[in-house]
Amino acid sequence: MSLDIANFEKSTNKFGKLTPQILQDFEKIVGKEYVFTDDKNRDAYSRDHTEDYSFLPDVVLKPRTPQEISQIMKICNEHVLPVTPRGGGTSLSGGALPTNNGVVISMERFNEILEIDTLNLQATVETGVITEVFQNAVKEKNLFYPPDPASKGTCFIGGNISHNSGGPKAVKYGVTRDYVLNLEVVLPTGEIIWTGANVLKNSTGYNLTQLITGSEGTLGIVTKIVFKLRPYPHKNIALLVPFESNEEACRAISAIYIAGVTPSGMEFMEREAIERTAFYLEDKMNQKTSIDLPDNIQAHLIIELDGNNEESMMIDAEKIVETLENGFKIGEILFADSDAQKEELWRLRRNISPAVNAYSLSKAEDVVVPRGNLPQLITAIKTIGNEYGFRSVCFGHAGDGNLHVNILKENISDQDWNTKVNDGIGEIFKEVVRLGGMLSGEHGIGIAKRPYMSIALGEANLRLMREIKKAFDPNGILNAGKIF
Amino acid sequence: MSLDIANFEKSTNKFGKLTPQILQDFEKIVGKEYVFTDDKNRDAYSRDHTEDYSFLPDVVLKPRTPQEISQIMKICNEHVLPVTPRGGGTSLSGGALPTNNGVVISMERFNEILEIDTLNLQATVETGVITEVFQNAVKEKNLFYPPDPASKGTCFIGGNISHNSGGPKAVKYGVTRDYVLNLEVVLPTGEIIWTGANVLKNSTGYNLTQLITGSEGTLGIVTKIVFKLRPYPHKNIALLVPFESNEEACRAISAIYIAGVTPSGMEFMEREAIERTAFYLEDKMNQKTSIDLPDNIQAHLIIELDGNNEESMMIDAEKIVETLENGFKIGEILFADSDAQKEELWRLRRNISPAVNAYSLSKAEDVVVPRGNLPQLITAIKTIGNEYGFRSVCFGHAGDGNLHVNILKENISDQDWNTKVNDGIGEIFKEVVRLGGMLSGEHGIGIAKRPYMSIALGEANLRLMREIKKAFDPNGILNAGKIF
Repeated sequence: MSLDIANFEKSTNKFGKLTPQILQDFEKIVGKEYVFTDDKNRDAYSRDHTEDYSFLPDVVLKPRTPQEISQIMKICNEHVLPVTPRGGGTSLSGGALPTNNGVVISMERFNEILEIDTLNLQATVETGVITEVFQNAVKEKNLFYPPDPASKGTCFIGGNISHNSGGPKAVKYGVTRDYVLNLEVVLPTGEIIWTGANVLKNSTGYNLTQLITGSEGTLGIVTKIVFKLRPYPHKNIALLVPFESNEEACRAISAIYIAGVTPSGMEFMEREAIERTAFYLEDKMNQKTSIDLPDNIQAHLIIELDGNNEESMMIDAEKIVETLENGFKIGEILFADSDAQKEELWRLRRNISPAVNAYSLSKAEDVVVPRGNLPQLITAIKTIGNEYGFRSVCFGHAGDGNLHVNILKENISDQDWNTKVNDGIGEIFKEVVRLGGMLSGEHGIGIAKRPYMSIALGEANLRLMREIKKAFDPNGILNAGKIF
Repeated sequence: MSLDIANFEKSTNKFGKLTPQILQDFEKIVGKEYVFTDDKNRDAYSRDHTEDYSFLPDVVLKPRTPQEISQIMKICNEHVLPVTPRGGGTSLSGGALPTNNGVVISMERFNEILEIDTLNLQATVETGVITEVFQNAVKEKNLFYPPDPASKGTCFIGGNISHNSGGPKAVKYGVTRDYVLNLEVVLPTGEIIWTGANVLKNSTGYNLTQLITGSEGTLGIVTKIVFKLRPYPHKNIALLVPFESNEEACRAISAIYIAGVTPSGMEFMEREAIERTAFYLEDKMNQKTSIDLPDNIQAHLIIELDGNNEESMMIDAEKIVETLENGFKIGEILFADSDAQKEELWRLRRNISPAVNAYSLSKAEDVVVPRGNLPQLITAIKTIGNEYGFRSVCFGHAGDGNLHVNILKENISDQDWNTKVNDGIGEIFKEVVRLGGMLSGEHGIGIAKRPYMSIALGEANLRLMREIKKAFDPNGILNAGKIF
C-alpha cells in the first residue's frame, strides 16, 4: 500500500452545500459577530498541529451555549453539512482538521469553570477551558486534576476528552477517561443530553460517558464536563537513572512496580532524544544542560515520586535505588531534590518534541505496547527506519508502555514522505500489533492513522464502531472521515 | 404507576422455538453430557439472588470454548432463540434470569486462570473463574486485584464484568472497569473478537472494552478478560468512628479527602444496620459483638488505610483522627490494629445483608449519589418508607456515595410487595436523581430496576442505548429484556 494521507480524505461523502440562507440562519443563532467567512479566519482554522496539513472550512462559528450548538446541528443535519468541532487545535492526528470543508464549530467561548465542588471533590467545566488553567484553578482549592498532556498550556480540556489524553502522570493517576464522571453533549441530531450522573460509580445502562470519551468528536459535541478530582500531592522528588541499554531500562520499570512502588512519573528517553534536546536547548534557548552522557549509556528513565509525606516518599526512593542497584546495569543515579534540578529534568523531557521539530518537519507517532515489549519495539522501529529511509527519536511514557516516535522528514522528498515513509509507518504498526499493542496511546487516530486501522482492528470491530457512529450520527456529518 | 416486576418480562419479544433438531446440534457442539433439559437442572438455573424470582430455561448448555459459544450463537441467532449467559448466579438485579426461557449458557467450565504476567502486571483469565480464587492466585505473586464484591466467594469474574462490580476497596482503587484492559467476546451474531489490546492506554477507535463492561451480558458473551494488576499492599489498619448523625458521618468523609488522605475503605452503617447484624451474629452464629452503641450514636464509618509502609499509614491515621476530632461530633474512635479487631469489624460489615435477609425477604437497592448528598437521601428513604409502608436498612460504600438499601418484606402482603412497594422504590429513585444520582452503583439494572430507567435517563439516552444494542445484536436474542 502507498498512502498519501494529506490527499486522502476529501469529499468521500456526498455532503450538502452551505447557502446564503443557512449562513443567515447561523447569524441569527450565534450573532453576526461570531460567524466568520473571511479568508484570514478560515485559514486560521484550517490547521492543527498535525504536520503541515491544511483544509479550509467554509465557515467558522463561535457559539456560546449548548442550545446554540443544538440549533446549528439541527440545520447541519437537515442539510447534511459537514461539521468539525474544534478545541485548542493542538491535535497531532488531524482531529480538528475540517477535511470535508463545511462548518467549523470553535469551542473557544465555552471557557468557564462552572463549579469546583470541594465537598464531593468534583468540578464542572466547559470544554473550551485550557487544561492548565483548570489544573491551576483546582490546585488553589488543594485539589488535583492529574492528566497533563504536553500541550496543556494551550489545549482545551474538551480536546482532552476527544482524544483521551494522558501525559507523564497517567502512569500513577490514569488518563482523562479515569476522571470523567459525566458529559453534557449535543448530539449530531441536535438533542442535548447528559451521558450519566455526577457519581463515582454507575451501573445504570450502557456507559455513554466512556463511549464518548476518546471518540474524537465524532459522536457528539461535548459542552460541559464533570470531573472527579483528588487531594493535591504537595511534595515530589525525581530520579534520573542512566541505563546501558533500552532493555535494561524497560526491565527496571516492572521491577520497581513489583517492589511495591507506584511512581507518579516513569519517562523513557533514548540517548538521541537527550542529545538532540541538549543541543536544541543550548542552540536555540541558550540553556546548558548539566547531564552527563557517558559512552556506555543508551537510555534514561526519569522516575518521579509524589505525595504529601516526605518520609514515605524517601522510603519508596530507597526501595527504587535498592531494586536498581541489585539487578540492573546502571550508571550513577541523579537524585533531584532541589526545584532547580527537577525543573532541569522536566525541561529536558518537555522539550524533546520542540527540539525534534525545530530542525525538521516530523510525523508524531504514539504507539502503545505492554511495557515489557518496549525494547523489541524500539529495535524494530530503528530497523524499519533504516529500511524505509527515515530516522526517528523515541521517548515517552514508558511506565504505560506508551512510546512517542517522532519520525524526521529531514532531507526526504515530499513524494517519499507522503508514500514510502507512510508505508514504513504501516510496518511499525504491524510490529506494534504483533507485540500486543495499539496504534495510539493518547493522540487518537484522526486522519493521520486512519488508513492503518485495519492493521489493529478486525472487520467485526470496525463494523461495530461504524454502527455505533450511525446510531449517534445517522447522516454522518460530525467530524466525518476521522478514525474510520 | 404500579409495577409487578416478577410478571413484567415474559414474552415481550417474538422468539423462535427450541426444536429437537436444534438440541441435537447443541449436543454435537458441546457434547451430550453438557446439554441439560431435565427439570432438576433447569430449575437450578432458573434463579439468581434476586428476591424469589424464577424463570425456567428450556435448556442449559455448558460449553468450554469461545468457538463452541460462537457456533451456539450462530444457531440461536438464525432461529431467534433467546440466550441468557450465566456466571455464578449471584446477581441482585435479575441479570442471570432467563426471563424469556430459551437457552442458558453457563460459563462454569471457563474456569482457568490462563496467565499471570508479572513483567507487565497483567493477568488473563476466563470468565468462569471465581473472583476470590483469582484474587488469591495473583496475591501469591505479590499482586493485587482490588474489586471485591461481597459475593466474591461464589460470583464469577465474568459477572463482575457484566455488572461493573465494586466493593469496599473501590473507594481507593476503583471498580471492575478500572482494571479491564481487553476482552475476548463472542458477539450475538457469532463472531469472536478482542475488544482492544493488553495495553494501559488506548486511543484507537471507540472503546468497546468499556462499552461491554457493565452492559449486563446484553452485547456479547465475554470469554476471556485481561486485567491490569497492582503491587499488593501488605499492611492495613481500620478505624471505627461513631457519629451523632448521618450528616456528620457523610460530611466527615469529604473532610478526610480534603485533608489529603485516600482511605482504602470508607463504609457507612446506619445504627439499625449494626443493631440487626449484632443481633443476627449472636442469634444465628453465636458470636458476640463487642461494639458499644451509646444512645447518642446514629451512624458509624469504618475507615481502612492500606499500603506497604506502616509509618506513612500511621501518619494518615493521625491526620484522620485530627480532622475528625477538630470538626465533628463523634464518639470514641475504635482503633483496630489487631487482626481479631479488624476481622470483627469487617465481619459485622459483611454480615449486614445476610442479617437483613435472615429474618425477611428483601429488595436490595443500590443507589449512588454524590457523597455529600447521602444524608438527605437517607432521610428521604425513611420518609418514603413510612409513606409506602416499608422499613429499610441502609449501609454501604459511602466514600463512593454508593448506598445499599435493603427493603424488608416482613409482614407486607405479596400484592403490596409487588406493586405498592415498587411504587415507593420509584419515589426513592426520583429522589436519587433529584440529588444528582443514579439507580445503580454496582448491581446493575437487570429486570429489577428496568421499569425505572426512564426516571434516570431521557429518551435520547435510551434511544442511543437501544441502537447500540441493535448494532451488536440485530435480532435481540442476548439477555433480552434486561436494562431496557
